[in-house]
Amino acid sequence: MSSITAIARPNIALIKYWGKQDRAANLPVTGSLSMTLDHFHTRTTITPDSSLKRDEILLNSRSAASGEAERIVRLLDRIRADFGVSGFVRVESENNFPTASGLASSASGFAALALAAARAFGLTLELRELSELARRGSGSAPRSLLGGLVMYAPESPGSDAYRLSQLRRPDEWELRMIVAVTTDEPKKVGSTEGMERTRRSSPYFRDWALHNTELLRKARDAVAAGNFAELGSLTESSCFSMHAVMMSANPPLVYWNPATLAVMRKVWDLREQGLEGYVTIDAGPHVKVLCEPQSAEALTDELRRIENVRAVFIERPGPGAEIVS
Amino acid sequence: MSSITAIARPNIALIKYWGKQDRAANLPVTGSLSMTLDHFHTRTTITPDSSLKRDEILLNSRSAASGEAERIVRLLDRIRADFGVSGFVRVESENNFPTASGLASSASGFAALALAAARAFGLTLELRELSELARRGSGSAPRSLLGGLVMYAPESPGSDAYRLSQLRRPDEWELRMIVAVTTDEPKKVGSTEGMERTRRSSPYFRDWALHNTELLRKARDAVAAGNFAELGSLTESSCFSMHAVMMSANPPLVYWNPATLAVMRKVWDLREQGLEGYVTIDAGPHVKVLCEPQSAEALTDELRRIENVRAVFIERPGPGAEIVS
Repeated sequence: MSSITAIARPNIALIKYWGKQDRAANLPVTGSLSMTLDHFHTRTTITPDSSLKRDEILLNSRSAASGEAERIVRLLDRIRADFGVSGFVRVESENNFPTASGLASSASGFAALALAAARAFGLTLELRELSELARRGSGSAPRSLLGGLVMYAPESPGSDAYRLSQLRRPDEWELRMIVAVTTDEPKKVGSTEGMERTRRSSPYFRDWALHNTELLRKARDAVAAGNFAELGSLTESSCFSMHAVMMSANPPLVYWNPATLAVMRKVWDLREQGLEGYVTIDAGPHVKVLCEPQSAEALTDELRRIENVRAVFIERPGPGAEIVS
Repeated sequence: MSSITAIARPNIALIKYWGKQDRAANLPVTGSLSMTLDHFHTRTTITPDSSLKRDEILLNSRSAASGEAERIVRLLDRIRADFGVSGFVRVESENNFPTASGLASSASGFAALALAAARAFGLTLELRELSELARRGSGSAPRSLLGGLVMYAPESPGSDAYRLSQLRRPDEWELRMIVAVTTDEPKKVGSTEGMERTRRSSPYFRDWALHNTELLRKARDAVAAGNFAELGSLTESSCFSMHAVMMSANPPLVYWNPATLAVMRKVWDLREQGLEGYVTIDAGPHVKVLCEPQSAEALTDELRRIENVRAVFIERPGPGAEIVS
């Protein structure tokens, strides 16, 4: 078999999930709704090689650290076990944006990996099968399989069967996501560890899941109605109730830095002045701002002026994961 | 009757309360434990004057704004109604520290007011009566009636009867509270309004109260055992679970600014390096750091170097409210 290359973009959740209901199956504790980006991406090439004695993993042109490699090999093992295929592969994966810093690199990474690896092993999988594979690597990765606005939620309340659905294709709703990068450093506590600490120690964990399910229902309605202000307001609610549950863990998980606060306050001040944007923050210090196309340039100019903001990008709704060669 | 002057110091809660169970009676939703400071203070003089047609309120040498004056007059009215006294008074109150910015000026203000006003009306009240008066003005004010480490909690679980108790006199446990002032501006959303928004809209409000009650029990034990590290860790837990519940309100209440985050991160970094301090933050952007005497100078030097930190003070456990003339 020859090399297969897939590209997937990170996605930014408007309605977040944080926490697993089942650690082994990596099942999210609640549904989520995201926008897949366009320019940021992971490009992953899988090359089956019969001379290999084990899988070989290169991330951003360097040999992967053991923890990273382990998550990737676990996904490859699952494909081999579940679909009865065999052989070792070389994985080469590159991000064109910072890795492991709260910019959803594990979402794009595991979406690209699942898609490329399945194909490299000669499999033709359905979306549901691909999304279950991608989820084993990262609970946010299934959303990057599709483009535009994507919901990933239980089929019925409490169900273990999660379904991926595209609520809006990339060209169906002109939205923008401004990404303000506030540090170059990777985060200290990764999402997997942070979620587990939160589940074990936060007094608010159960109510977080219940509340977020309600926000998800309202957000789906806001998308259906094309109501931007409502979607923005629900986005902020989901963001802050998630950071609240993180912060109430023991010891507290605070992913923000001073520049995170400065960007957040600036967006709120500008909104009061009529320039409409809504903040969302993932498990990291960067701030993303959901806005409409006509506000994107002005917002970006303002955010670029803030001290310690390293870079500001404007992203559009992007396509789903795809095989490129 | 002649003028009566009282002094009271603000107190910083280690185990916080946030939210009222009964808005009219201003009953806190949970007990709390605080340290009364020494240098910061409110000095309040009450002068009965038979020529007055209504109470006259001067705060920091200026005529009080109507909202501020109303809260004060309401307390004076209650004294007149409950204790059958009459006559109007002149209130002159001065803080030697910033007002309404998250430095507990309403706690010291209403403690001094209750004490001075009762005496000016010729009353000799018990601590319990004074604390109920002070609470009408601010739920944190009763704690400033006593010095050192003070607990203000229901007599039995769920009871409406709150009891004030001094757990440690000022000289019984050498602690320090470093106050890092991060802005000169008053806060946008006052505590009373913020608590009401939180009670009405946060999905975590009920669990916050239950959780904090548990922290209070553990903190009382840590004080009894003189276990500083345990008290510090519980202090941070209470702080972050309170800010979490604020942040999960709709719209989110975020009292922090960039310098708040910078101070918080610095304290955590220093603690990892062996310089032990624990952060607590009230409904405002300033950071207070609980530490032992031997760490206070070194911590203060570090915090003074942080950009946008306006001033840093070291406070000791101070005395309770007192009549000074």
